[in-house]
Amino acid sequence: MPEDRNKAGWETMHAIHDEVADATVRAMQGVAPDMGEMIVNFAFGEIYARPGLDLKTRQICTVAMLAAMGAQTTPQLKAHIRGALNVGWTRQEIVEVLMQSAVYAGFPSALSALAVAKKVFDDADKHSQQEKKEP
Amino acid sequence: MPEDRNKAGWETMHAIHDEVADATVRAMQGVAPDMGEMIVNFAFGEIYARPGLDLKTRQICTVAMLAAMGAQTTPQLKAHIRGALNVGWTRQEIVEVLMQSAVYAGFPSALSALAVAKKVFDDADKHSQQEKKEP
Amino acid sequence: MPEDRNKAGWETMHAIHDEVADATVRAMQGVAPDMGEMIVNFAFGEIYARPGLDLKTRQICTVAMLAAMGAQTTPQLKAHIRGALNVGWTRQEIVEVLMQSAVYAGFPSALSALAVAKKVFDDADKHSQQEKKEP
Amino acid sequence: MPEDRNKAGWETMHAIHDEVADATVRAMQGVAPDMGEMIVNFAFGEIYARPGLDLKTRQICTVAMLAAMGAQTTPQLKAHIRGALNVGWTRQEIVEVLMQSAVYAGFPSALSALAVAKKVFDDADKHSQQEKKEP
Amino acid sequence: MPEDRNKAGWETMHAIHDEVADATVRAMQGVAPDMGEMIVNFAFGEIYARPGLDLKTRQICTVAMLAAMGAQTTPQLKAHIRGALNVGWTRQEIVEVLMQSAVYAGFPSALSALAVAKKVFDDADKHSQQEKKEP
Amino acid sequence: MPEDRNKAGWETMHAIHDEVADATVRAMQGVAPDMGEMIVNFAFGEIYARPGLDLKTRQICTVAMLAAMGAQTTPQLKAHIRGALNVGWTRQEIVEVLMQSAVYAGFPSALSALAVAKKVFDDADKHSQQEKKEP
Repeated sequence: MPEDRNKAGWETMHAIHDEVADATVRAMQGVAPDMGEMIVNFAFGEIYARPGLDLKTRQICTVAMLAAMGAQTTPQLKAHIRGALNVGWTRQEIVEVLMQSAVYAGFPSALSALAVAKKVFDDADKHSQQEKKEP
Repeated sequence: MPEDRNKAGWETMHAIHDEVADATVRAMQGVAPDMGEMIVNFAFGEIYARPGLDLKTRQICTVAMLAAMGAQTTPQLKAHIRGALNVGWTRQEIVEVLMQSAVYAGFPSALSALAVAKKVFDDADKHSQQEKKEP
Repeated sequence: MPEDRNKAGWETMHAIHDEVADATVRAMQGVAPDMGEMIVNFAFGEIYARPGLDLKTRQICTVAMLAAMGAQTTPQLKAHIRGALNVGWTRQEIVEVLMQSAVYAGFPSALSALAVAKKVFDDADKHSQQEKKEP
Repeated sequence: MPEDRNKAGWETMHAIHDEVADATVRAMQGVAPDMGEMIVNFAFGEIYARPGLDLKTRQICTVAMLAAMGAQTTPQLKAHIRGALNVGWTRQEIVEVLMQSAVYAGFPSALSALAVAKKVFDDADKHSQQEKKEP
Repeated sequence: MPEDRNKAGWETMHAIHDEVADATVRAMQGVAPDMGEMIVNFAFGEIYARPGLDLKTRQICTVAMLAAMGAQTTPQLKAHIRGALNVGWTRQEIVEVLMQSAVYAGFPSALSALAVAKKVFDDADKHSQQEKKEP
Repeated sequence: MPEDRNKAGWETMHAIHDEVADATVRAMQGVAPDMGEMIVNFAFGEIYARPGLDLKTRQICTVAMLAAMGAQTTPQLKAHIRGALNVGWTRQEIVEVLMQSAVYAGFPSALSALAVAKKVFDDADKHSQQEKKEP
């Protein structure tokens, strides 16, 4: 079973996140190695991998939570907006959720969250332009 | 146009919420009447009524935001869990979102949010049993 | 000097708050007696009593801070709205500040803060009606 | 291994908390049964049971965290102050931590936390007086 | 009417803020153009422009709210301290409000808010020295 | 007496913190000189210097509070992790407290707090290597 949740955790994490998530887990190795394992095993293996709610809905809810909590100054909101794009949410839909957060958590945090989203979108554009140039 | 956003606001609000929302708007009349109008006009008429994201997704994101912000001691989380049921989310799906909030906002606020959900579900059960008895 | 800040503290506190504040200080005696002293000495004697800003502005800023922090479920917001009335702010002005908090801290906390204000105003009305009856 | 962390979880939980914690876990059965398990397995079995820090220090840190987060309106701060008494902290030491929280999280939340502590201490006194009467 | 609140919004915004606010509104155009409009129409046109409270008091309350909410790491506190200077508050008065926030939201956020204020004051000094040199 | 709490404050502060704390107090001189004094007099002289709880426990509780409050983007968490090392907590014990904060305040803030701790530990390593080279 523990291998199971670890396996389910890695699979679920990779279904949403790209190599940046692996880097986050690895980054913990220099200070709290078991913490990286807990992200995979608990957050992804025990919570996200649960059958009761589809992964796409889970991911937009995480973006909503982080925006409402004012996590705009941490790397997490950025990573989870990338994850939301990866599981099929459009830029417009993500922007709508962040605008909606103004109603519940106020305009300043919504504006900061939208600035984070803009950064993620711009990075993606730059990246895809670069790929075109380097075929 | 202002009548438009007011009309769109009331329609959107009634597509999600029942008479409790009307009571919230009315309750403001005794202290800040324009505040009630702003909920309808701005929150529902200008934000929720926007075409870029479906109402069902908007509502589960609101539940996610309120749970993460620790709004468990206010009447809002209760009202929005009722709203989530009204727009078609199952109890299990709502419970999954609240459990997921433990990862992002910690266990204490997740446990309190789940206690609020239990109260909403129990009230709904009582209400539907009463309706069966009084046909 | 320490007697000075204690004396200044009591005077400043009584210039804003009524007997409820004394009760708060006394209530600490059963669990943390020095904490009551610190409210008087530090909060009122060292901060509020400072000459650089008038007491009336200080008090509305405190109401603004507590509303924005979501202190609606604690007795403090109630006490400080009473204090704001005592130092000369009108009900309308206090309501405007709480409505404005919706922009910065979101609608749910603004609505809860306005409900607290309504309670304070209603209590004051009841009290003044009682005084008329019992001359 | 999963049985191990479950067993370690229950043992660690019972080393700190009394029957109230069991009730919290059981209370989840009516709405989110796996959440109760996660408290035991993850919070107590994977985090608290770790060898790197003694249980007594862990518990006072939890009280400090909850006080600083403004968890005064939830049942958790109350339960964890009881737990802190159970693992050997004196009332005075707990009061000192809550007073110290005024420096970091402000006076209002410190005052509310101290009021919660007073309630826990008063309940304990009542309970021990009752035990004397009913030998 | 919608043009009215838009016109009132721009006027009120320019009565407080300088070109930085215009830049904030414009910055939204690349990610959420309607959000920029909402700042002008709702925040300034519907809330700030209301007659029940003078603009100067509104602005110091906004500074108080942002400081208490820990918005020190976002660009908003900086912008609103500049706005407070623009509507006539002295540096000393702004500093007093930020010091007072230590009582309600704790010392760490007060110290960070004061560091933001120092930056705003230093920038203003540099700017005015430059103007003297370049007549 | 006021000299007493000032003297006690400086002594207590220097028992925990190194020259960085002095720099924080001095930094206030350019914007709010009395605020620096209040950190020494109130935070350290009136709260930390109290006899009811040992300094070592006080310091780990402060780290716990700041981590739970999401103070990872302010200089305070860094300074207090350094202070915790200074009063005798091991790196592992500090890491355990920060991991434990994931249970109460969520994984994102715990991960950010652990990144701050890693920075403090790396700086300390660099510093001690430099000392070896320059005897």
